[in-house]
Amino acid sequence: MQRRDMIRMMSALAATGALAAPAFAQGDAKPTSPDGETLMDMSKVPPSWFGNEQVAVIIYDNMTALDVIGPQYFLSGLFGATVHMVAKTDQPITSDSGITITPTATFETCPRALDILLVGGGVSGTLAAMRDDVTLDFLADRGSRAKWVTSVCTGSLLLGQAGLLKGYRATSHWIGRPLLNDFGAIEVNERMVFDRNRATGAGVSAGLDLGLELMHRMRPLDLAQAMQVMAEYAPEPPLDFGTPEKVPSDVLAGIEGRLSGFTDAVRATARTARI
Amino acid sequence: MQRRDMIRMMSALAATGALAAPAFAQGDAKPTSPDGETLMDMSKVPPSWFGNEQVAVIIYDNMTALDVIGPQYFLSGLFGATVHMVAKTDQPITSDSGITITPTATFETCPRALDILLVGGGVSGTLAAMRDDVTLDFLADRGSRAKWVTSVCTGSLLLGQAGLLKGYRATSHWIGRPLLNDFGAIEVNERMVFDRNRATGAGVSAGLDLGLELMHRMRPLDLAQAMQVMAEYAPEPPLDFGTPEKVPSDVLAGIEGRLSGFTDAVRATARTARI
Repeated sequence: MQRRDMIRMMSALAATGALAAPAFAQGDAKPTSPDGETLMDMSKVPPSWFGNEQVAVIIYDNMTALDVIGPQYFLSGLFGATVHMVAKTDQPITSDSGITITPTATFETCPRALDILLVGGGVSGTLAAMRDDVTLDFLADRGSRAKWVTSVCTGSLLLGQAGLLKGYRATSHWIGRPLLNDFGAIEVNERMVFDRNRATGAGVSAGLDLGLELMHRMRPLDLAQAMQVMAEYAPEPPLDFGTPEKVPSDVLAGIEGRLSGFTDAVRATARTARI
Repeated sequence: MQRRDMIRMMSALAATGALAAPAFAQGDAKPTSPDGETLMDMSKVPPSWFGNEQVAVIIYDNMTALDVIGPQYFLSGLFGATVHMVAKTDQPITSDSGITITPTATFETCPRALDILLVGGGVSGTLAAMRDDVTLDFLADRGSRAKWVTSVCTGSLLLGQAGLLKGYRATSHWIGRPLLNDFGAIEVNERMVFDRNRATGAGVSAGLDLGLELMHRMRPLDLAQAMQVMAEYAPEPPLDFGTPEKVPSDVLAGIEGRLSGFTDAVRATARTARI
């Protein structure tokens, strides 16, 4: 099918509401109410907003849900794309804050050619994934072909363990950033780092910035504008302690002390990284 | 049990890792690795960080997941609190962007006395919830006793329909803000509005600001500092179109046009609001 035909077909589907039109921005799974009202008129969506990407968001037990739910919001705004929530098996996973999510695909059923591979982080869950050969095989395989290989938070340590950051500039959650060199990556203290087709984000909330930037690179500016304003992404943090440099040293030392077992375990695990 | 005893018990539990210690910040459900390593030493958590709140995060089909996953990150950092993901039934719900979440409690099993009631928004899902008497009964009941009645995005329209915002200053997603007056609320164009025990947030991403502010009000500053830096919540949006005022008028008109069916349906529904 030619691109023009595909876009025409998608626009027609969108007009019927049959196309998944995720997120508040562009509609949802049921843009018509049970009473038959048209709640969102998708026929008015510009054809230039459509594509047909395959996006895989990797989820696993004891990960940090917000790491991926932030960027998933923006990526789900890529009209025509399919965003898979991919786990090792079809069983629900539970995040470190107690969010239980059912995968939409498994390592087996996930498309082999991906436009975006996105990996979030965590503490014990991320370490367990770094020590799981099935997970590393999957990431190495999909990462070798994906157009974008991306992470948020300590997800970059998992990419690193799978051998996907060797020779790349990268960032991570600040607790994990000094560990990136152990995977052959070049540590960069920035909120987002784009190096060729690798895009890594800092801790947790950086996923919103990363997701918006990624979708902005894949679509016309007016869709990125629409998505940002639909997310009302004009943050006003009520406190100003968002980076290690801004936090009192005793609070920072407390966190580092509580997490020293994790960082030690990551360093030990990195000795078997696939690099 | 006296508060001092409770805190001592919780600290002891935390030291064993038996206490749920959610989110990257303070540990996760398995702070010890399968190999027996201590990944997070929870014995070093200050006793002043503990409480025993009951938090209910309301979830429903076709809601916007990020509306609640953002604040849930910060609220899960309230050591000793229990954060319930509450739905009408025990069946998983699916968000408007395709995230399927399993509830941890139902309207039946949710504690009657809540410290925080939190409601997120959406489009068709929120409208459906506004038209569901069981949901409205539940919200009106729990909201009548909750210490904090809170919302993110169009969740405030749902609170309004349940009669919980009458006479209160409130905000909402910008698309829903002009509708607040229909519920007897006083519309305020701010990212977060605190009026007595009502706390409402603007669209989607405002939930991160709201969650951090709420937890800050319930715990010592050093825990809020720790949570903010663990979330690395120092946002750097790569674009600057986060509010309606900043978006080109044709993009804004496009969104308003596509959503006019929703806003019309909300206005019609508001005529039967419990106010």
